[in-house]
Amino acid sequence: MKNTVLKLKSFQKSIDKSLDRYLAPEPGHPALIYRAMRYSVFAGGKRLRPALLLLSAGVFGMTRQKAMPFACALEMIHTYSLIHDDLPAMDNDDMRRGRPTCHKKFGEAAAILAGDGLLTKAFEIMMLPALKQAISPERAAAAAYMIARAAGAAGMVGGQTADMENEGGKITKGALEYIHRHKTGALISASVMSGTIIAGAGSTEKKYMKKYSENIGLAFQITDDILDITADEKKLGKTKGKDAAAGKMTYPALYGPEISRKKAEELIITAKKNLDKIKKDTKSLEDLADYITARTY
Amino acid sequence: MKNTVLKLKSFQKSIDKSLDRYLAPEPGHPALIYRAMRYSVFAGGKRLRPALLLLSAGVFGMTRQKAMPFACALEMIHTYSLIHDDLPAMDNDDMRRGRPTCHKKFGEAAAILAGDGLLTKAFEIMMLPALKQAISPERAAAAAYMIARAAGAAGMVGGQTADMENEGGKITKGALEYIHRHKTGALISASVMSGTIIAGAGSTEKKYMKKYSENIGLAFQITDDILDITADEKKLGKTKGKDAAAGKMTYPALYGPEISRKKAEELIITAKKNLDKIKKDTKSLEDLADYITARTY
Repeated sequence: MKNTVLKLKSFQKSIDKSLDRYLAPEPGHPALIYRAMRYSVFAGGKRLRPALLLLSAGVFGMTRQKAMPFACALEMIHTYSLIHDDLPAMDNDDMRRGRPTCHKKFGEAAAILAGDGLLTKAFEIMMLPALKQAISPERAAAAAYMIARAAGAAGMVGGQTADMENEGGKITKGALEYIHRHKTGALISASVMSGTIIAGAGSTEKKYMKKYSENIGLAFQITDDILDITADEKKLGKTKGKDAAAGKMTYPALYGPEISRKKAEELIITAKKNLDKIKKDTKSLEDLADYITARTY
Repeated sequence: MKNTVLKLKSFQKSIDKSLDRYLAPEPGHPALIYRAMRYSVFAGGKRLRPALLLLSAGVFGMTRQKAMPFACALEMIHTYSLIHDDLPAMDNDDMRRGRPTCHKKFGEAAAILAGDGLLTKAFEIMMLPALKQAISPERAAAAAYMIARAAGAAGMVGGQTADMENEGGKITKGALEYIHRHKTGALISASVMSGTIIAGAGSTEKKYMKKYSENIGLAFQITDDILDITADEKKLGKTKGKDAAAGKMTYPALYGPEISRKKAEELIITAKKNLDKIKKDTKSLEDLADYITARTY
């Protein structure tokens, strides 16, 4: 656990350096849009998705440097989704990671545009490795396709839509699992899988990596739900119990915190079992799986 | 002129058929998000951007079928930008193309998500020809990169940001041209250039096509500004004089309608002169250039 935190920290530094470069203000274009995008990207995220991508690509022999554009793209997509989710018309959140949300700081119009800009920038930089022949264009296209599917109407956007539709009402267990698998799980899974694809893993390896990724994705969201009730508000950086107050259905609300925690732990065990079947050094991904349920914020 | 309208109509049919297929609701995912995306995409747009892409690719020998995914992607990006621009926090428009805007019909949250979904879907389908080897993955990556640049912070999103920042205040001629070139011009130019790139044009051809594309892009926006004052409100499908009422600076407001019209016509002449330098049959692109200033809505 401690090792994982240390390893994540070392990743964070190089990820942040690359994000800083990719999001550098471009002379001649409105400074405001870069300020708003950067404000939310550099708000102290854990960089879990890019770390998962770099580690997954690393398992199959790809260097951190080559995989970095895809890693940064995932963090941009994640950040755009937070900016848009926080908007008054959506979750109406004033605080995120201990600071005012993007629209509180820059106004709603700029926040909508910052989200749009980040999503677009993500696909821009995903094309870079193909243009520079750092990654084969075929693999880059396959990974970008997969990320777009995971982020779109049949993925994250679909999960967010279902979440919005079910707010305040009674929800079925099936709908709750749909929301969790798509709103958060899909992009976490895509982080693992796009790393696996660009690094050229074989089809059997991809199969086990996919199971790993889906299990940690759902475990991550369940843990998030639990932390929304139990975590230290300061560490969480946002108002505690907001999900419950908004009438949002969560795992602990439906099953209680104990069964939820158990479910998350079982998912992590299953995730690691799938890693065992891959004939590569997957220790770092095992550690990351443990970190997902053990984290305190 | 009449021929161009006829030709555009024949394109519209096949473009709409493909859009219908790419935006088919996916079983198991929220019907609402597909309804909202489709509502705005099938609101009677002229399909100018996809037509420009198909014609440009056609000049260099690429079939309509092969270029279609990129053509549809451009229409999705254009539609997403309209949905987000119409939002209360942005231009706050209730009507678009003679119907309630997306947020008026489905609510703000669904409209934000529909825009996000369309932007994401655009990049998803741009990857399809590379995956199917219908277009070389290198060229597909180059075109997708170019489209992302044109749509993002250094393109359309940047233009929209500048537009928002300058609303109501005094604006310089330079700022007005920046807004026009980026808010509308960038994506129109990208429509021509991505078609040119996927079809494998040479570097000299690309240079002239780029000039053509930039000139028609600016001419298109100037004509839009003029139509906002002069057009039949029914044909326009939105409230007339809205730009002026919002304190938005436009070409006719700054230079008067006569000089503006002349400027647009000059740009079209320059555009066509650049086509002349290409040793291919560019008649359809010439016609389209004429249509841009001659259209009445």
